Amino acid sequence: MRLAVVGAGAVGSAVAELAGEYGHTVTALADSGGAAVDPDGIDVDGALTRKEAEGTVGTAPTADALAGPYDVLVEATPTTLGDAEPGFGHVRAALERDCHVVLANKGPVAERYGEVRALERESAGEVYLEATVGGAMPVLSTIADFGAEHIEAARGVLNGTANFVLSRMAAEGLGYEHVLAEAQDLGVAEADPSFDVEGTDAALKCVILANVLYDREYTLSDAAVEGIRDLPGSALELAAEDGRTIRLIGEVKNGAIRVGPRLIPEHGALAVTGTRNIVELETEHAGLLDISGRGAGGPETATAVLADVGRLAE
Amino acid sequence: MRLAVVGAGAVGSAVAELAGEYGHTVTALADSGGAAVDPDGIDVDGALTRKEAEGTVGTAPTADALAGPYDVLVEATPTTLGDAEPGFGHVRAALERDCHVVLANKGPVAERYGEVRALERESAGEVYLEATVGGAMPVLSTIADFGAEHIEAARGVLNGTANFVLSRMAAEGLGYEHVLAEAQDLGVAEADPSFDVEGTDAALKCVILANVLYDREYTLSDAAVEGIRDLPGSALELAAEDGRTIRLIGEVKNGAIRVGPRLIPEHGALAVTGTRNIVELETEHAGLLDISGRGAGGPETATAVLADVGRLAE
Repeated sequence: MRLAVVGAGAVGSAVAELAGEYGHTVTALADSGGAAVDPDGIDVDGALTRKEAEGTVGTAPTADALAGPYDVLVEATPTTLGDAEPGFGHVRAALERDCHVVLANKGPVAERYGEVRALERESAGEVYLEATVGGAMPVLSTIADFGAEHIEAARGVLNGTANFVLSRMAAEGLGYEHVLAEAQDLGVAEADPSFDVEGTDAALKCVILANVLYDREYTLSDAAVEGIRDLPGSALELAAEDGRTIRLIGEVKNGAIRVGPRLIPEHGALAVTGTRNIVELETEHAGLLDISGRGAGGPETATAVLADVGRLAE
Repeated sequence: MRLAVVGAGAVGSAVAELAGEYGHTVTALADSGGAAVDPDGIDVDGALTRKEAEGTVGTAPTADALAGPYDVLVEATPTTLGDAEPGFGHVRAALERDCHVVLANKGPVAERYGEVRALERESAGEVYLEATVGGAMPVLSTIADFGAEHIEAARGVLNGTANFVLSRMAAEGLGYEHVLAEAQDLGVAEADPSFDVEGTDAALKCVILANVLYDREYTLSDAAVEGIRDLPGSALELAAEDGRTIRLIGEVKNGAIRVGPRLIPEHGALAVTGTRNIVELETEHAGLLDISGRGAGGPETATAVLADVGRLAE
């Protein structure tokens, strides 16, 4: 397949780098400053080297990436809230050209799911979004395999930064501010960690899960969200005395979306440590199914993007 | 899709019962004593009631099930070793008619994988086999998503009976014979538990994993297999003193297939309890991915069969 990759951060770059290995051709790669476009396949290494040196992957206008020939638009620009632009506009442009869309950007399907599906119905192109929930973990494809109507609930640890902080606090008996600073030093938490520690990122993934499970248009405002910023270390100590621990758990059940710190068994499936994520599906006919793995990261998320591209290629 | 279900044990019966819910029609259901066949869809409840009362699902010859109209043959007869008959013959009959095949029976793809794939190449029908490895867990579809060449190893707990015995021995400090008798009382172990406790069942699943990962024709004789029959309770006690436990682990790595009792971290991902199964995939680009769930059972395995049927329907 010919891929136009819009967004050249960790995920977009990894998709461009791995595409050849999966048998695909990158005909465009764009960031906010410019684009490299070649109908016969761009020089990916050259474009990424250029980005490192000059801050942008190419000299063509970014819009040219959307105008050139491609089969699949890979939308990997940063997630934005509200109108989900510019990602949403990119999705629309591709579908209006009857091209497929594979999303790594959560915005369009967390904030404007109904519109995305409406555009898809009018298009010969299809929209896939495995990479928007849980990085390398095959969550949405597993739901599709079971059939969404046979999944009774989905819950889990959907943010690696918050999980790193909580599991370190629990294991070392350290306070929130201390562990957060450590996470920032390690590059696990951003300078402004709000998006992760306040639960927004986990909530966006839960909103997408709810949209897929119920085929409705939930948005972030439909989620009840509580972060981990105010969680005292003493709460973790109390939990440990009872054989339990605390994790930031997102849950979609009975049409409701909730994210917040929850008490869970210390050695249970949900108590993943470090930046690891887990999703547990409550199925109608097959009990609990747990999937855990790396929920973020460039190559990790790129594998989910490329799995979607593979599905489209079949 | 029109399904001919051959084999009316726990899995075949559950497939027949759930097929309608997934939008499919059962045009034939057969067991070793007879068959119910109707091109417009058989009365599934009637056939299963009849099986309970009279020992067989219908009065038509079993062969009629393979001769009637269907899109997908669901092969759910018991796994047999060596020539993998009668399952293999059913697979051949369906492919020679250019029909699809969905396997729950491990025999044909553990013992005659190369022949099955050769028949598939000559046919307009395709062969899917998710249900042969790990019941409800989406193992083979996840490998297909990543691309088999991007999976460096697969390992895990692939037999619920052996895992029940080992996890009970570890948790209660009981001996093998005692726990096995308990498992037999509960229906978790069969009267002759050899197939499970000697590692054969787990090995067959590993052989199938190896066939899929390396696209070669491994058979059971290529696996190094050791069971749990001779494991003394003292070994579990020693492991526990060191924060570890013992599970029957199957592993496919570097072209080799090994099954045997292994020391693993007591609270690690592989230490699932009871009859639960887990498969861990070592991926090239995305680290470790763990999938755990119910590895056996009628409805559980039927969900994997129906996921395959859904893929064929697309």
